[in-house]
Amino acid sequence: MSEPKPLRFAAFVMNTTSHILHGAWRAPDARQTDFNSLQHWIDLAKTLEEARFDFIFFADVVGLYDDYQGDWKKFVDTGLQIPSNDPLVLASALASHTENLGIAITSSILQEHPFDFARKISTLDHASNGRIAWNIVTSLSQNAWRNFGYDGITAHDDRYAWAEEYVDVAYKLWEGSWDDGALVQDRIRGIHADFDKVHKIHHVGDRYRVEGPHLVAPSPQRTPVLFQAGSSPTGRRFAARNAEAQFIVSPTPQAAKGLVDDTRRLAARAGRDPQDIQFFQGLSFVIGSTEEEARRKAAELDEYIDPSTIIAHSAGGLGFDLGFYDLDTPIGEIKTEGTQSTLLWLREAVPDREPTVRDLAELRSRSGRVVGTPEQIADRLAEWRDAGVGGINVINATIPNSYIEFAEHVLPVLRERGLAQHEYAPGTSRRKLTGRDTLPDTHPAAAYRGAFAEKVEVPA
Amino acid sequence: MSEPKPLRFAAFVMNTTSHILHGAWRAPDARQTDFNSLQHWIDLAKTLEEARFDFIFFADVVGLYDDYQGDWKKFVDTGLQIPSNDPLVLASALASHTENLGIAITSSILQEHPFDFARKISTLDHASNGRIAWNIVTSLSQNAWRNFGYDGITAHDDRYAWAEEYVDVAYKLWEGSWDDGALVQDRIRGIHADFDKVHKIHHVGDRYRVEGPHLVAPSPQRTPVLFQAGSSPTGRRFAARNAEAQFIVSPTPQAAKGLVDDTRRLAARAGRDPQDIQFFQGLSFVIGSTEEEARRKAAELDEYIDPSTIIAHSAGGLGFDLGFYDLDTPIGEIKTEGTQSTLLWLREAVPDREPTVRDLAELRSRSGRVVGTPEQIADRLAEWRDAGVGGINVINATIPNSYIEFAEHVLPVLRERGLAQHEYAPGTSRRKLTGRDTLPDTHPAAAYRGAFAEKVEVPA
Repeated sequence: MSEPKPLRFAAFVMNTTSHILHGAWRAPDARQTDFNSLQHWIDLAKTLEEARFDFIFFADVVGLYDDYQGDWKKFVDTGLQIPSNDPLVLASALASHTENLGIAITSSILQEHPFDFARKISTLDHASNGRIAWNIVTSLSQNAWRNFGYDGITAHDDRYAWAEEYVDVAYKLWEGSWDDGALVQDRIRGIHADFDKVHKIHHVGDRYRVEGPHLVAPSPQRTPVLFQAGSSPTGRRFAARNAEAQFIVSPTPQAAKGLVDDTRRLAARAGRDPQDIQFFQGLSFVIGSTEEEARRKAAELDEYIDPSTIIAHSAGGLGFDLGFYDLDTPIGEIKTEGTQSTLLWLREAVPDREPTVRDLAELRSRSGRVVGTPEQIADRLAEWRDAGVGGINVINATIPNSYIEFAEHVLPVLRERGLAQHEYAPGTSRRKLTGRDTLPDTHPAAAYRGAFAEKVEVPA
Repeated sequence: MSEPKPLRFAAFVMNTTSHILHGAWRAPDARQTDFNSLQHWIDLAKTLEEARFDFIFFADVVGLYDDYQGDWKKFVDTGLQIPSNDPLVLASALASHTENLGIAITSSILQEHPFDFARKISTLDHASNGRIAWNIVTSLSQNAWRNFGYDGITAHDDRYAWAEEYVDVAYKLWEGSWDDGALVQDRIRGIHADFDKVHKIHHVGDRYRVEGPHLVAPSPQRTPVLFQAGSSPTGRRFAARNAEAQFIVSPTPQAAKGLVDDTRRLAARAGRDPQDIQFFQGLSFVIGSTEEEARRKAAELDEYIDPSTIIAHSAGGLGFDLGFYDLDTPIGEIKTEGTQSTLLWLREAVPDREPTVRDLAELRSRSGRVVGTPEQIADRLAEWRDAGVGGINVINATIPNSYIEFAEHVLPVLRERGLAQHEYAPGTSRRKLTGRDTLPDTHPAAAYRGAFAEKVEVPA
């Protein structure tokens, strides 16, 4: 057997109080309430870098989740991703206090024009010496769309067509607008950059017209490391074409394997090397020095988790307002299309009785939770790795303690077993992840290299 | 005579190589070529804070200047604001390495949707403990508009109508969406924020529809300190209504006095306290231990300044391509509308002969330049202060040396004379500038406080 490849680790966080495990912010050690403080994030980034995490991964939303019990009170009451601060603008501070940690930022196609977004990302990629990653999302909440002037959400496939044009504009700016070696800064000749190597992109598409040139000279990675999280068939096709890392939340390693294999097949069909996509599974950990202690700590955590807030978070995905149903309502009694697949999943998980809304909440809050001793956790992580998962996106119950405990107790065991890296590889985040600084030639963005070399002035 | 009020100082910089004094980047001590480096900016911010500057003021553009000699080669050749990196995304890093320096960011209404922009600014205002200022601009270059999907620039007054709606949306989010005390984070009761104190804004205007709520809880200043730089009549009306600080480039203290008095009159007419607007004059300094030395250094600087690049920068303002005229062409021979007022100004400045394009370049590059000993410079600055100017936006020839020399040689003399502060006042940038953390009640943004208290759900 060949040496097992170490897993990558990312910290799955959000610039808000209550991200995933709703209610955990009430625990005495929870400091996620300090999200307004820059020092809070700098300290966390340093902790993660000491632990050799590859990324701090910022989730984000640009609006409220869909109504619960008819309005948005629940979200404000419980801090469910409101307030939520912008993650992108923290990146330079985190970069200035770390040297190796990658900074992965979620940004929706809804929120920024691609010309401005591409410039901000390139600026940050320079500022961080090539440690920026972008998690491409298309917003799902009605409120987010209404914050940006739309009546509501567009049809799912339209969002991905939009996303394809959005990344296309960005690729043109990042890969095609400036050739290598354009920035000469020759003081003697007085030539700052080589005009023959800088190009307008003249993008004209369904949604965007962008003349260019890109305003930023090539950054260490040019295109940031591309994350994507959609798991629908359209989302998976988008990932297969564009993503270098896909964030997944599979119920089991076996299910992950199916998804990994399927997405890699699609990537190969799109002309890419299937190994050019890596998969980061979202998991949370409850760690004990004995299994008993771990179970006791998990029970303590469950005391804080609020089932109705878990439901409020996930109800949007079902397409209707579950807030009007009591937690003890059997799911089978709720007759809507959205519940059918959920019901099947619940019946499998709770085979001995008719599953209720509360069961749904409990399953949701415990899904992806690994409880045990460091050794038991290492055993479980080996299963994920053997299923083809390349990294773990570590979900927190409390910040920073979830990461401190993982670093102190689990990572040493993982390193011993070759499941986690001992030291960072040098260079940019993409180099650490894939061995190269820029995208491979088989990535669609690479098609824009040299594509705009002819100086044409297109009439506006 | 009452104690003279100290002037404020800001460093007028841009995240690019060649900002104003084009060609100076070729000087041996010029480090502005390092603009891609985050450390370059952190070091400058620390230097400015040690010198008790109130702001680092980032200019910005989101496109090329209008064509010179028929294309954009000149800008790339000479580094004339291309490449130019985004300034906003540097702010958190600068904030994390300073404690008192204000960070003023230029952002155009063209580049970001106000919902997202307001969120980014609020996030940064939290991260910096209230040290963010926003220089509101409406982009002037055709290329900038074509980078954002427009055919070209809109009529001037339309831009200001747009700007008024843009700031209105931002004011509603910053001032009206969250009441004071809304964020309670009560772990015992499990109440994170008080729903009765958080409001959607339901903005519906000519250009924007924004539902809200603002996603960020009130930051120390709520609305950032508002800078504005437009000097046209419409621009001045906009400043009179909205700005707390206006950036001006007057040829003389007397001219500044006229502008200051006029804008304050307009502010009073808009119901504001005329003293609630302060004026920052842009000046550059050539400092010598004797007047002779200063003159020699000015002559050395002029060796680096490139007249044709100065023309390329400013030609856009004339509305036609001056690049097609030789530097020795008499301006009077260029028969277009755009040159008439320039010609009058030149004839006054060069009374002894027919002024040429080169004279225009020289006057432009030397306008706002103060040459002399620290004592002579102090005399001149006293004149500006006595004309009603509250601050100086210090233009650099080289970064960081222009600021280091000013700090070492001029500021001590200014402090002795009461023309510069000895120590920072405590608190936010607005408190340092005006004595309060948030906008006064007479500012139009204040009208939105409490304006959305009634919970209404407006159908989308």
